[in-house]
Amino acid sequence: MPETNVHFDTANLRTLTPGDLDALEIGAGILGCGGGGNPYQGKLLTLEAMKAGYQMTLLATDDIAPEARCMSVGGIGAPVVGTERIREGREGLRCLRAMEEYTGQPIDAVVCEEIGGANSMNPLVTAGLAGLPVLDCDGMGRAFPEMQMTTFSIYGHSSTPSVMCDLHGNVVVFQHAVSEVFHERMARACVVAQGGGAMLATAPMAASYVQRYAIPKSYTQALELGEAVIAARRNQDDPIEAVCKSQGGRRLFTGKITDLKRHLRGGFAVGEVSLGGFGANQGEAAEIAIQNEFLIFRREGRVEVTVPDLIVVLDVDTGYPITTEVLRYGQRVAVLALPAPALLRTPQALEVVGPQAFGYPEIVFDPLPAATVGAA
Amino acid sequence: MPETNVHFDTANLRTLTPGDLDALEIGAGILGCGGGGNPYQGKLLTLEAMKAGYQMTLLATDDIAPEARCMSVGGIGAPVVGTERIREGREGLRCLRAMEEYTGQPIDAVVCEEIGGANSMNPLVTAGLAGLPVLDCDGMGRAFPEMQMTTFSIYGHSSTPSVMCDLHGNVVVFQHAVSEVFHERMARACVVAQGGGAMLATAPMAASYVQRYAIPKSYTQALELGEAVIAARRNQDDPIEAVCKSQGGRRLFTGKITDLKRHLRGGFAVGEVSLGGFGANQGEAAEIAIQNEFLIFRREGRVEVTVPDLIVVLDVDTGYPITTEVLRYGQRVAVLALPAPALLRTPQALEVVGPQAFGYPEIVFDPLPAATVGAA
Repeated sequence: MPETNVHFDTANLRTLTPGDLDALEIGAGILGCGGGGNPYQGKLLTLEAMKAGYQMTLLATDDIAPEARCMSVGGIGAPVVGTERIREGREGLRCLRAMEEYTGQPIDAVVCEEIGGANSMNPLVTAGLAGLPVLDCDGMGRAFPEMQMTTFSIYGHSSTPSVMCDLHGNVVVFQHAVSEVFHERMARACVVAQGGGAMLATAPMAASYVQRYAIPKSYTQALELGEAVIAARRNQDDPIEAVCKSQGGRRLFTGKITDLKRHLRGGFAVGEVSLGGFGANQGEAAEIAIQNEFLIFRREGRVEVTVPDLIVVLDVDTGYPITTEVLRYGQRVAVLALPAPALLRTPQALEVVGPQAFGYPEIVFDPLPAATVGAA
Repeated sequence: MPETNVHFDTANLRTLTPGDLDALEIGAGILGCGGGGNPYQGKLLTLEAMKAGYQMTLLATDDIAPEARCMSVGGIGAPVVGTERIREGREGLRCLRAMEEYTGQPIDAVVCEEIGGANSMNPLVTAGLAGLPVLDCDGMGRAFPEMQMTTFSIYGHSSTPSVMCDLHGNVVVFQHAVSEVFHERMARACVVAQGGGAMLATAPMAASYVQRYAIPKSYTQALELGEAVIAARRNQDDPIEAVCKSQGGRRLFTGKITDLKRHLRGGFAVGEVSLGGFGANQGEAAEIAIQNEFLIFRREGRVEVTVPDLIVVLDVDTGYPITTEVLRYGQRVAVLALPAPALLRTPQALEVVGPQAFGYPEIVFDPLPAATVGAA
């Protein structure tokens, strides 16, 4: 990290510790809403970079000059592949360097595409290796399955030219896409040809745009969630309550998985999980529809919470998040809802990330009441 | 076309006429060996450009300065899509302009990737719109299903950075591929996402490289083949004999299609056509294995001609080429063999375009005897 920087005061940087990464792993997993991939492997890569002397730093979005050039970066591909195929580790850095070369201008800060799941860690490695800070924000406030579902895209930033780098060394520039959906489709097809996983950096944004349209304080929120779980476990408190209290969540259901349908369709994990209640929910039944993430929560057949609000499934004893790919029959879980950030609830956003966008034309998004929104 | 050009003498340019396009359509179809797509739609686009005042010119490879920058361009995608989805017409030109912008240097001439089938026409439209000549050569001397199967790639030219443009306006730059096969895979996946068809321009080559490694006089050969068929039909001669005489081909078999297995596997048309002989082949049986192109000709179960030698199926009465996607039960056809150009017969080339490369490890390429090589 340079001692001085024209775009920000280095005194404002928060340097992450290995302990922070443990908290981030849990918190990002919770915000993943069942998707976004497991942050564990990314944590190991980040830890390794830390041990090699690289600093991973966070910077509040307000603490960077509006004209600074920010680049968002994230993994693209099937989360299942991500758990089995180890990344090479410098894919994100290659994206950044290729983007600087392609645009002829340096990048000043890295932005997180998706705080939920594995993509919380990817920007840290990329920025750390490049000696840049990561801004404390992201483009989703959770996990979503497709690239056009970021607030950056939703509010008008064109994600192209983008750069995609895989572990083999292939470099693809999506110079121009006629729509964000086309960009997603082409990149998705290409990553399958590369073996199912790659890093993708989208077109640089001015910090002023990030300040206006990113979901603010995502890293802080994820860290707080993870710290709450860790503290509850240490103090033998109820981790589920701790999670709810930390970010104003609501406990929807406690139950056992009684049935699970899950299959791959077009590269996405699609299905439904059925729950039989116990404790306060004894005798009740609930279902959650899955499309990589948990999308729709129904109690006794009645829709209660829907995307973009966050539906989170935690191990009822440990408070650890359970991603959709490791759900199994008999698991004892707590289902929580967290209100989606305001930027995901506008009509403009709901067109892209509301129930309709996921193939539920009959379901109207009924936001979680503001009363449940806590400090966040 | 500029009056003067530092890289070639404009007096050496051959301007194509609408009649030339008719001959090229037939000749390129013959050299397609059943694949490469139908040149008809490309001919219409070329004619339209001609009517709009653009000149389509050919230049012998020896008539351009060795340092001139040449760019090969061709359609990529499923031929079946090409027959149903009309191109926008300026995709190739957009590739050329994007390549000039990306590399920062102008292109001096256009090169044909694949003379067989539809890709014979694509460089003409691109070059015509840009006011550039097309060199009288190509990278295959026939049609092959994949991009790494050009002599340009085989003899060491890296096809990246390449540019792919579709009819929608999407522009993708494959900046670096770790291998030619990876490039093919990524581009193939991407074109499927674009709807099944696009134009792709590969990294510029010096004319000196083209002079050494391109298949020479491909356009001349295709034009001669087409003219031979047209003349035979006008004079009521046997068009099959005319084709053989024109390029030193050998008539292998005359028969009726008695069985046809054809299915799509990984985007390629794969199958086998069975023939029952008539005339001189009365009582004989033959089969041809298909993988987009005609690959292996067997008589009574014995392998007689194999890829990269050209196996051509013509309508026995008209001499018109029959592509693998329009084969049908009961068709009366003549099967011809044309010797592959020398550059496709080296051990280096056979690794990429020999029977092994197409999944026939047990078949050894036994070249058609030189005696059958005619004037070509």
